[in-house]
Amino acid sequence: MLNFEFKNPTKILFGAGQIAKITAEIPKDAKVLVLYGGGSIKSNGIYEQVTKALADHSYITFGGIPANPEYEVLLEALALIKKEAVTFLLAVGGGSVIDGTKFLSSAALYTGDSPWDILKNGIRTEVGMPFGAVLTLPATGSEMNSGAVITRAATQEKLGMGGPGLFPIFSVLDPTVIQSIPTKQLANGITDAFTHVLEQYMTFPTQALLQDRFAESIMQTLIEVAPRIMANPKDYKAASDFMWSCTMALNGLIQKGVPTDWAVHAIGHELTAAYSIDHARTLAIIAGNHYRYNFEAKKEKLAQYAQRVWNISGEDTDALAHAAIEQTEAFFHSLGIDTKLSQYVSQYEGTAESVQERFIQRGWLGIGEHKTLSPTDVAAIIKMSY
Amino acid sequence: MLNFEFKNPTKILFGAGQIAKITAEIPKDAKVLVLYGGGSIKSNGIYEQVTKALADHSYITFGGIPANPEYEVLLEALALIKKEAVTFLLAVGGGSVIDGTKFLSSAALYTGDSPWDILKNGIRTEVGMPFGAVLTLPATGSEMNSGAVITRAATQEKLGMGGPGLFPIFSVLDPTVIQSIPTKQLANGITDAFTHVLEQYMTFPTQALLQDRFAESIMQTLIEVAPRIMANPKDYKAASDFMWSCTMALNGLIQKGVPTDWAVHAIGHELTAAYSIDHARTLAIIAGNHYRYNFEAKKEKLAQYAQRVWNISGEDTDALAHAAIEQTEAFFHSLGIDTKLSQYVSQYEGTAESVQERFIQRGWLGIGEHKTLSPTDVAAIIKMSY
Repeated sequence: MLNFEFKNPTKILFGAGQIAKITAEIPKDAKVLVLYGGGSIKSNGIYEQVTKALADHSYITFGGIPANPEYEVLLEALALIKKEAVTFLLAVGGGSVIDGTKFLSSAALYTGDSPWDILKNGIRTEVGMPFGAVLTLPATGSEMNSGAVITRAATQEKLGMGGPGLFPIFSVLDPTVIQSIPTKQLANGITDAFTHVLEQYMTFPTQALLQDRFAESIMQTLIEVAPRIMANPKDYKAASDFMWSCTMALNGLIQKGVPTDWAVHAIGHELTAAYSIDHARTLAIIAGNHYRYNFEAKKEKLAQYAQRVWNISGEDTDALAHAAIEQTEAFFHSLGIDTKLSQYVSQYEGTAESVQERFIQRGWLGIGEHKTLSPTDVAAIIKMSY
Repeated sequence: MLNFEFKNPTKILFGAGQIAKITAEIPKDAKVLVLYGGGSIKSNGIYEQVTKALADHSYITFGGIPANPEYEVLLEALALIKKEAVTFLLAVGGGSVIDGTKFLSSAALYTGDSPWDILKNGIRTEVGMPFGAVLTLPATGSEMNSGAVITRAATQEKLGMGGPGLFPIFSVLDPTVIQSIPTKQLANGITDAFTHVLEQYMTFPTQALLQDRFAESIMQTLIEVAPRIMANPKDYKAASDFMWSCTMALNGLIQKGVPTDWAVHAIGHELTAAYSIDHARTLAIIAGNHYRYNFEAKKEKLAQYAQRVWNISGEDTDALAHAAIEQTEAFFHSLGIDTKLSQYVSQYEGTAESVQERFIQRGWLGIGEHKTLSPTDVAAIIKMSY
């Protein structure tokens, strides 16, 4: 096991009816900015529960944060925070709203010239404006971690940020919110969470026995609940397991003490930036081919995954590993998630070269578990995924 | 899944050499009291590492905290804290030293008449004096939770306390400390951690799929590393898995959203209070018979445990469940842990009756997962364990 530091101070409030508890979690004298996305929270009852819980607080609202939270939109919210002397942020939404709120938490206290520098220069946020979250879409784990990814349409960039100041003070996880999520979004959420685990697990073999088993536990649970959730989002028990699995998939726990990869995300973000393909779907496009391309480095772990997660028996490491890749893509297909770029966009020729060029420009000359996957390798993986 | 709240703010510093990092984790202007046990830290190099890391801090020391931290001894430390205006506590030891430090953290700020009231009246500690820990014996999980158990020899009592103010600010988990732990203590640690998981897992079946799998993961890991640790405590990889498993067994994570039992601990504590049997060994004495006595309530989960943790195949729930109990006791035996009270004390007659009487006096009329296990039931379980 590698040396590590772990601290995750986010308070989780889990279960039906827990939104009401935010009353006690936000300081009474706070000036609250409630942030949300496209407005679905106004039709599914969540907005009503939140505003009821804030009845004794001073609050204003800012809606319209899009999927892949857009920098230009966030700048409008930032102006509002400054104008209204906001002191506490409340994200009510999925990963995009929470990520956008994290950017605002950091930017609100940032004293440099341009808040884009936080992203461009990888400035770590030690202290941010305090914020909480009411999660409406399980997927990203943003509700219990200190990372965010922000998109800037003008430059087709999608960049990450983070730091210990960006953990939510609290997050409400109420599984009943899943009832009103469209099937397509549920499929995205399952795929996103599943791939988060793969990124932290599918590396060369290490001896971190517990982390391996925890990662396998999350994947086994997602596989078990996926068909039930897809068939009936009102299945509260399945929704609970799904929601908690998504959070545990990316709250830092399973990545501690082990190498991680994250090449699938690095490449996938480019496809979202270029074609606005849903984040989770870009992961499904890339994951299988990333493992095929890096087969020799990962086949031992792929074989372990085949046996423990997919219950595939056999002795041959290569055969097990190949079967695991096939099973993974079959799982995505079972959710209605396509795994070829050409199934999403008709004009995909040149994608590999343009991403390669972009990586070179940014100086991203080695990604993946060993930081050895070059822009040329990235291009090859993308071509396999056309 | 049941509704739950979860927050665990302890910072973990994991790995060889991490003790040096405490320098940066303790405020520079703190007056530190270093607490330890029997003095083994002075021969195994840990004391030296700690004092070196504290070279620029003002600190004093207090040694001699015994296993099952004794109230009268802790009162001496409390007097020292007040006399020397201590502001930060540093536990260097196993669960007993850390638990004792938690009592002191609470008692140092307690304004009532007698600090024993914190235990006797179950007073929750919202704010305690800040403290950190350097773990020298993996077992109890105290390094990453907010609970403690304190013993008072004069009255043969062993009582629990807790509250959100009692999480360590940080805990150092350096697996190299395991090298100098006597085999008997290692066996105790494995048994203690394993039983912690059982207490949170072996209940009526619930649908909390991820918590079940996490609990099973910890037990599988302990089973896998136990023989390696017992054979060679210098096996750093095995020591790492062991140490992290003990912490994860009782840091709150696997108990969230599920019923828990804790009857084995409630009964076991009485055997330690009466006969000074090592805590872990009292758990091994009681666990199997608790499951036999409550077989109908627990057999479904016992069968799941048989299949997933012990890889026992079969269709018959009763047979699987019985086999699981046998395997559990065989595991304890493999560590050199006896599972009969008569193997520890020659004069054990009357134990069942005296514990029964004690439970009645305290008003503990129903323990276990359903709070229905009466003092009479407790006596019956103890008699099965003679």
